[in-house]
Amino acid sequence: MARTPRDVHLPISLPTPVRSRRLVDELLAAIVDGRLAEGDWLPSTRVLARQLSCSRSVVTGCYDELIAAGFLDGIPGAGTRVRAGARAAVRLGARSHVTEESAPVVVRGEGAVPRIIGDLRPGVPDGSLIDARRWRSCVRAATWTPEPSTAGTTALTAALGEHLRRHRGVHAEEILLTPGSSCGFALLGEAAWDSGIRRAFVEAPGYAEAQRELARVGFSVEPVEVDADGVCVGRLPDDRCLVYTTPAHQYPLGHRMSVDRRARLVEWARRTGSVIIEDDYDGEFRYDVPPLPALQALPGAREFVGYVGTASKTLTVGLAVAWTVPPGVLSDAVGRRYAERAWSVAEPVAGTLAEFISRGHLATHLAKVARTYRDRRNALSAAVIERCPEMPIIGVDAGLHATIVIDRVPGAQVRDRLERSGWLVRAVSDYPLADKQSVDGVVVSYARLTPASAVRFAEALRRAVPEVLSEGGGMIRT
Amino acid sequence: MARTPRDVHLPISLPTPVRSRRLVDELLAAIVDGRLAEGDWLPSTRVLARQLSCSRSVVTGCYDELIAAGFLDGIPGAGTRVRAGARAAVRLGARSHVTEESAPVVVRGEGAVPRIIGDLRPGVPDGSLIDARRWRSCVRAATWTPEPSTAGTTALTAALGEHLRRHRGVHAEEILLTPGSSCGFALLGEAAWDSGIRRAFVEAPGYAEAQRELARVGFSVEPVEVDADGVCVGRLPDDRCLVYTTPAHQYPLGHRMSVDRRARLVEWARRTGSVIIEDDYDGEFRYDVPPLPALQALPGAREFVGYVGTASKTLTVGLAVAWTVPPGVLSDAVGRRYAERAWSVAEPVAGTLAEFISRGHLATHLAKVARTYRDRRNALSAAVIERCPEMPIIGVDAGLHATIVIDRVPGAQVRDRLERSGWLVRAVSDYPLADKQSVDGVVVSYARLTPASAVRFAEALRRAVPEVLSEGGGMIRT
Repeated sequence: MARTPRDVHLPISLPTPVRSRRLVDELLAAIVDGRLAEGDWLPSTRVLARQLSCSRSVVTGCYDELIAAGFLDGIPGAGTRVRAGARAAVRLGARSHVTEESAPVVVRGEGAVPRIIGDLRPGVPDGSLIDARRWRSCVRAATWTPEPSTAGTTALTAALGEHLRRHRGVHAEEILLTPGSSCGFALLGEAAWDSGIRRAFVEAPGYAEAQRELARVGFSVEPVEVDADGVCVGRLPDDRCLVYTTPAHQYPLGHRMSVDRRARLVEWARRTGSVIIEDDYDGEFRYDVPPLPALQALPGAREFVGYVGTASKTLTVGLAVAWTVPPGVLSDAVGRRYAERAWSVAEPVAGTLAEFISRGHLATHLAKVARTYRDRRNALSAAVIERCPEMPIIGVDAGLHATIVIDRVPGAQVRDRLERSGWLVRAVSDYPLADKQSVDGVVVSYARLTPASAVRFAEALRRAVPEVLSEGGGMIRT
Repeated sequence: MARTPRDVHLPISLPTPVRSRRLVDELLAAIVDGRLAEGDWLPSTRVLARQLSCSRSVVTGCYDELIAAGFLDGIPGAGTRVRAGARAAVRLGARSHVTEESAPVVVRGEGAVPRIIGDLRPGVPDGSLIDARRWRSCVRAATWTPEPSTAGTTALTAALGEHLRRHRGVHAEEILLTPGSSCGFALLGEAAWDSGIRRAFVEAPGYAEAQRELARVGFSVEPVEVDADGVCVGRLPDDRCLVYTTPAHQYPLGHRMSVDRRARLVEWARRTGSVIIEDDYDGEFRYDVPPLPALQALPGAREFVGYVGTASKTLTVGLAVAWTVPPGVLSDAVGRRYAERAWSVAEPVAGTLAEFISRGHLATHLAKVARTYRDRRNALSAAVIERCPEMPIIGVDAGLHATIVIDRVPGAQVRDRLERSGWLVRAVSDYPLADKQSVDGVVVSYARLTPASAVRFAEALRRAVPEVLSEGGGMIRT
């Protein structure tokens, strides 16, 4: 058997201890961005294990997994290499899972391939904080069988109703399950359109998914300004329209809508007969501030506030479970639209999640992770305040991300610079309708940012601004 | 402790042996249709077990499940009763799972509550044919952890690519996973619209979901006639347009598109630059006829045929996994539209399904169930031919449903009459665009119809037509 000795170096490195999941992801990333071409030989497990300072069994396990999944070929007596078609397959797999504004997950640098130190783009909580033992126990308890049954969704609807009542003050007689919150925006938008509403407003800057779904319904979406108290109600017209808002933690700037502003918004909607879409995407998380229930829970709001939530932010991405509680006035119209669409959630996951909630694990989880996220928020805040004192950090009372305001350099240029040094963030100007307002800077998630990394990030940020300026960037806004 | 003896009779009966899943469903149905009101006491487990001639543990298990799910209250020392809010919760849970034209699952009769003997509406395969042990083993092997990962969808994309190549002749460089096939129709329709196509044709009669999704894109959908060879290509215009078709088993009439017709359709599309949506919803099943690969697999078809498939028909509803292979000419446009939507499938289910396919279980399953479905088809055919010789049964070569042609009475009246005797079917006229053609009758799924029940159904059908006539119905078409 010809044993071909090869001197292959794979340009990757990983934080120690090297975890199997990370290594698999890094190998897939290498296939996508061309560090590994189709047909390329991989280093032997012995060599790669030495390079990464990890046990050989970690590498062997990853190779086996990728061989089983069809990305690598294991050739007995010769070695392991990248299979033909692997790149397209990985790219599509990755693309099937876009959670945000469809920016590439893998950074393509200029010539050199940058290493990703941290992906701080908002939208992804730290799934590793979920108690995996409890989750697995719920998987078993849900005992989904392949026979057609709606037991999972039925149980989830009931469990979620309880949870929303206790945790968000939402009294949901109707909960519509969808595979994503954007389906909820579409349902509410279509029902509002059916009811004769023709103007739609989205917070500026705001959430691209919401803006796109409403545009798809037919609305030519108009921006509405936000300030530190939330949506500027005074800027809304004095007639019937649709408003998309994120009162728990404005997306992306991060403000919480004040109690006074909430009352005014509800009063305005009541007076004009308008409909509000409340996207409570990370409303379960708040730090050192009094709780504010959902907007829909305010007296008199139930009739015209539609509530949308998702398991992607409270638990983890990848469950494809979200929920919509329609406003009273549109209840029939939303129900009709929902019945027309074949939008269902996966029964096995619905059953598991129902168990997880009804056993009280979700409440426990939220309480536990809120402490962890607060620590991470504190570490990021402290690091930015110390290293970048001229950059105010805002939106830190709630949610899982903050905005760092930068006033001499456009956020997009700082974002690019940070990307080249291995940190992925978003610029405020990445968000739709953002050009209508004056705050600029970068939007940073601390959900998966350890305190040690927060200091490294703040240092990279401190270096980024003068680097942009020395390259002739910046100074566009004065 | 006050023990209140109650003499409660619950108006349900079930086929023996009574199965736990059935009893749960029947109790939920009773809550929805008012046989059980909120606050009503249920019979004791002893009494209900006697009424149903089943073991008391079956009843106890069901009560416990419904108590745990929040639909019933178990009151120690007193009994079990329907919880406040249960009806709304059940109704919504059921509604979250509409798979077809949103007809009610529970029949409301005139006064009396009819008992459902068999639901023969198409669209639901027999999930109980799946090897539950193998499925559970795949659940364990997929070992999904809550950490954000696309390993499940990546593996599913690879496994599905292999499966489609071997079983349908489809060479898929790109597979886009969506929670339902209607998402695929929307993606293909939007991309076709982006490419400048403005006319869309749907088979008449045809699939409501497809018609609705294309209408939502903006097309004013036009019907195109089908005959026993499939879509009438000669009726299509001589310029660029979009055509939705179900060549493996025309939905709902059931014809397979002939080889000659396929070649003509492809030639027409090539000549006019048109785009075809091939909905291969139950293309895996065929009986006693030569295999026909997917339309997309024909020479030269890859460029302009978009392929859509779903696990809902090959395995079971409730997985919320479907796939789209875009046509070559729209590959970029579909990819762009897909990246914009947050349509993802549940990672745990994707991982499980990837295991199930890559271990060869799906291929084994399809081979096994094809035999079972053929037997059921044979039983239905034989029963109809014997009991209702004047009603031709068509579309039996493939798929999981057949059409029984009735020429003196409108199918909708026969459908209503059958419903009152406990059989749920669809009328050909229930399908959109159906008024444009002359065949009428009922569409009947045999996927879950045992040979014994097939005889009972055929007898009910034989009685239905004279009953409709004696009530003064029918004779509308002459």
